[in-house]
Amino acid sequence: MKVVKFGGSSLASGKQLEKVFQIVVSDPERKVVVVSAPGKRFSEDEKVTDLLIECAELSLQNQDPKEKLDAVVARYALIAEELAISSDIIQEIENDLKRRASSDKSNPERFMDLMKASGEDNNAKLVAAYFQSQGVDASYVDPKDAGLLVSDEPGNAQTLPESYTKLASLHDRRGILVFPGFFGYSKEGDVFTFSRSGSDITGSILANALKADLYENFTDVDAVYSVNPSLVSRPKEIKELTYREMRELSYAGFSVLHDEALVPAFRAGIPVNIKNTNNPSAPGTRIVYERDNTNGPVIGIASDEGFCSIYVSKYLMNREVGFGRKLLGILEEFGLSYEHTPSGIDDISVILRENQLAPGMEEEIKRRIETDLNADLVKFEHSLALIMVVGEGMRRNVGTMARASKALAKAKVNIEMINQGSSEVSMMFGVKEVEEKRAVQALYDEFFAAVMV
Amino acid sequence: MKVVKFGGSSLASGKQLEKVFQIVVSDPERKVVVVSAPGKRFSEDEKVTDLLIECAELSLQNQDPKEKLDAVVARYALIAEELAISSDIIQEIENDLKRRASSDKSNPERFMDLMKASGEDNNAKLVAAYFQSQGVDASYVDPKDAGLLVSDEPGNAQTLPESYTKLASLHDRRGILVFPGFFGYSKEGDVFTFSRSGSDITGSILANALKADLYENFTDVDAVYSVNPSLVSRPKEIKELTYREMRELSYAGFSVLHDEALVPAFRAGIPVNIKNTNNPSAPGTRIVYERDNTNGPVIGIASDEGFCSIYVSKYLMNREVGFGRKLLGILEEFGLSYEHTPSGIDDISVILRENQLAPGMEEEIKRRIETDLNADLVKFEHSLALIMVVGEGMRRNVGTMARASKALAKAKVNIEMINQGSSEVSMMFGVKEVEEKRAVQALYDEFFAAVMV
Repeated sequence: MKVVKFGGSSLASGKQLEKVFQIVVSDPERKVVVVSAPGKRFSEDEKVTDLLIECAELSLQNQDPKEKLDAVVARYALIAEELAISSDIIQEIENDLKRRASSDKSNPERFMDLMKASGEDNNAKLVAAYFQSQGVDASYVDPKDAGLLVSDEPGNAQTLPESYTKLASLHDRRGILVFPGFFGYSKEGDVFTFSRSGSDITGSILANALKADLYENFTDVDAVYSVNPSLVSRPKEIKELTYREMRELSYAGFSVLHDEALVPAFRAGIPVNIKNTNNPSAPGTRIVYERDNTNGPVIGIASDEGFCSIYVSKYLMNREVGFGRKLLGILEEFGLSYEHTPSGIDDISVILRENQLAPGMEEEIKRRIETDLNADLVKFEHSLALIMVVGEGMRRNVGTMARASKALAKAKVNIEMINQGSSEVSMMFGVKEVEEKRAVQALYDEFFAAVMV
Repeated sequence: MKVVKFGGSSLASGKQLEKVFQIVVSDPERKVVVVSAPGKRFSEDEKVTDLLIECAELSLQNQDPKEKLDAVVARYALIAEELAISSDIIQEIENDLKRRASSDKSNPERFMDLMKASGEDNNAKLVAAYFQSQGVDASYVDPKDAGLLVSDEPGNAQTLPESYTKLASLHDRRGILVFPGFFGYSKEGDVFTFSRSGSDITGSILANALKADLYENFTDVDAVYSVNPSLVSRPKEIKELTYREMRELSYAGFSVLHDEALVPAFRAGIPVNIKNTNNPSAPGTRIVYERDNTNGPVIGIASDEGFCSIYVSKYLMNREVGFGRKLLGILEEFGLSYEHTPSGIDDISVILRENQLAPGMEEEIKRRIETDLNADLVKFEHSLALIMVVGEGMRRNVGTMARASKALAKAKVNIEMINQGSSEVSMMFGVKEVEEKRAVQALYDEFFAAVMV
C-alpha cells in the first residue's frame, strides 16, 4: 500500500488534476491520497492559501473579505468547470468558507488556522468528487473523524501520539481515500495547522500510521539534484539517497522536501519517493533507510551563505574546564543557536547564521565574552558560506578528504574551516561567500564529472 | 640584559658547573642566573629533589631521614670538592637542611614544600660561592628579600602581582645574581613551590619583571625538534618558532619547555632561547612573538595518544537550542575536560583524554546523555591519537590541507576526524592509535623531507 501526496502545483488546475487522477488509478496500491491546496498555475499566480490568509487578515481588521473569498471560490469553480464536475461541490465549498469567515474571532491565531486549513480541506472534497465523477470508488476523509489529533499550537501543531492508532483504522475503509494535508484537530475539536510544508507532514504521518510500503511525494521536479542548479549547470540527479544524506543535504535548504516532515516516515523505516506529477514515468529520487554504495563516496553537495564566526582566543584556554560550555551559555542568553564549534588549543570559533544578530548585538556579545571569560581576543568574521559534501561511502573511503581539499586548492579556494569526523556521511568546508560558487563547482567537477561521462 | 636559566642536568656535577660558569661569563649581558636543583648525572642517578621528597616523607612518618639527608649533602659536597670550593658552604647547606628537617610538621604539605625548595635554594648558594671563588662578582639572591611573593598553595603556588614591581629593583644590584628557581614566599613568610617545571617559571617571571631582552633556557638538547624523535628518526631541528606554535606543539607533551612557564615572558613579549649547556655554540631554538615565515607552511608536527570520543546523534539535533551546552554540562558534572567537539547536522562528538574515565563512568555517562538529552545513539570510541600539524604559514597557504590529507591517504591512513579553522596556526587530525606512527611519518615526509635535502 502506498500513501501518495500531491503538492500545490500538481493541483493548480483541471489539467493538473487529470494527471493526478491518471497517476493514482494507474497503480492499485495508491490507496491514500494526501492533497495540498491549489497552488500557482503560472509564476505571478496567487496560491489559494495566500488568498485565504488575506481573507483572514481582512476579517480580523473588520474589513469585508468578500472579494478575496470570491477569488478562492472562483479557483475551485474553474477547476470544477474544466473537469465537468457537478457544481454542488462548489456550493458546498462556498458555504463552508462563509461559515468559517463568520466564525468566532476572539482568538485571532486560531481563526487564522481555521481559514488557512480550508484550502486543503475543500480541495480534498473537490478531488474526491472528481474521482467519483470518473466512476472510481473514492471518498473524502475528514481528519476529525479519522482521528488526526494535534496539539493546540496555531501554525505549529504537533501530532499527538494517539493519532497513530486511530489513523490505522483507515485500513478498513474501502476505495481511494482523499485526505486533506496541513492540519489536524485538537482534543477540543478546533482546527490547528502544521508548520511550513504541512501537507508533507500529513503524508508522512499517514504512511507511518498505515505502515505503508512507500510514501510517494509528487511535486514538479524530476528528482533531487546532486547540487544546487543555480550554482552548477545541469547537475546530476540523485536516484537514491538515505535519510541521513537527505538530512545533511537539506541543511542548505535546496531540498525538495522539508526534512522535518520526514520524521514519522523515517521512524517507521518507510521509503519515500519524490516524483514529478508532470513526468510520472521518471523514476524520481528514493529516500531510503540504507542503500548500496555504488557510485563513489559522494552523493551530493549542499551549500549555504549567510554565516559568521565568533573567534575567541585565550592563552591556556585548553586547561580551563567549562570554558566552552560557558561560551555557549552566553550565546544562548542572546537567543542564538549555533552550527559548529571548531577549536584549537587556545581558541574556539562558533559558527552561526548571521541573520540572528540584531543591531548592536555583536558589540554586546564581544563585551560579554571579554568580561565574563577573560578572553584575550574576540573577533567576528562575516559573510561565510558552509559547504557540505555528503555521502554514505565517505567513512570507508580513505582518500575523499584528499580529493576534496586538492580540488579546492586547485581552484585557489582558501578553506577557512573544516569540520569532519562526527557525521559519518558528510564533511564540511567553510569558505568566504565570494568563493562559494567556485568552490562548489570545483567539488562537483571532482566527484561527479567523471561519473557523468 | 639576559635572564639565564639552567636545568638540573646542567648543574648535576662540578664538570657541568664549569660549563655553566663559562657560558655565563662569556656574555656580560647574562646578569641573572636561575638555577634548578642538581639533577641526574647518569640515567640511574637520583635527582636531589627526589631525595628531598623522600626525606620529607620519612620525617612525616616519624622515621629518621638522616641517611637521605646525608645523601643530599654528599651531592653538594662532591660538587664543591670537584670545584675546590671552600667547605664552609657545605656546612651552611647541612645546617640549613637540618633546620628545615626539624621544623614544624603540623601542615604536612607546607613541610613538604619547605624541604623540596631547599634543593634549588642551596644550589643557588653553592653556584654563587663557586662563581665568587673564580673571582667573579656574584651573589646569591634570597627570593624572600627580592620580593617573590606567591599564593599559599602547596605545590601549585601562583605569583602575586606585586612581585613584579618588587623584583624589578634587582636591577640596582651589582654583579651576577644567582636566583634559586621553583619557589617563592607567601605573605606570611612561608615557602611555597610552583608546579612542575617550577624553575622555568621563576626564570620567566624574572625576565618579565626585569624587562630582559632575552630569556635563555639552558637544557641538554640542541633544539626543539620538528617532530617527536621516537616516531621519526633524526627529525629536523626548529630554529625559530612563535609562542603560538610552541603552545600548539607542546599540546602533545614532547616539548622541552613546560608551556605554562612561558606565560610571564609571553605577556611581556620577551623572546625565549632554548639552548644546550653541553653545546652552547649551537644556536638552539628561539621562541618569539612573531617570525618571518620562510620555510614552508609547517614548522612542526605533534601527536599524542590516549584519546577517546563520545559520539552522540539525534535526528534534528541541529534545531535544538542548547543541546551542545547541555552535553558539555553533563561531562563537566563528571569532572571531565574535553579537547574538541566536531559536529555534523544531527550529531556531535566530544574528544577527551580517556585516562579521565574512572571505571563504570562510561556506562553512567551514556545513560545520562540518553536520558537527559533524549539522544538516539551514544557511542564511545577508544584508542584515538590526535596529530597537530603546526605552522604560522598555514592560513595563507591554500594547499596545506590538500597536501596533508593526500599524504595520509597515500599512506592508507583513515582520517577519523579533522578540526581546522579556529586556530590559524594548526590543523588537527584524529586517527586510530595503531596508525599514529605511520601518519606522522607520512606528514613529516610531505612537509619536511624536501626541505632537508
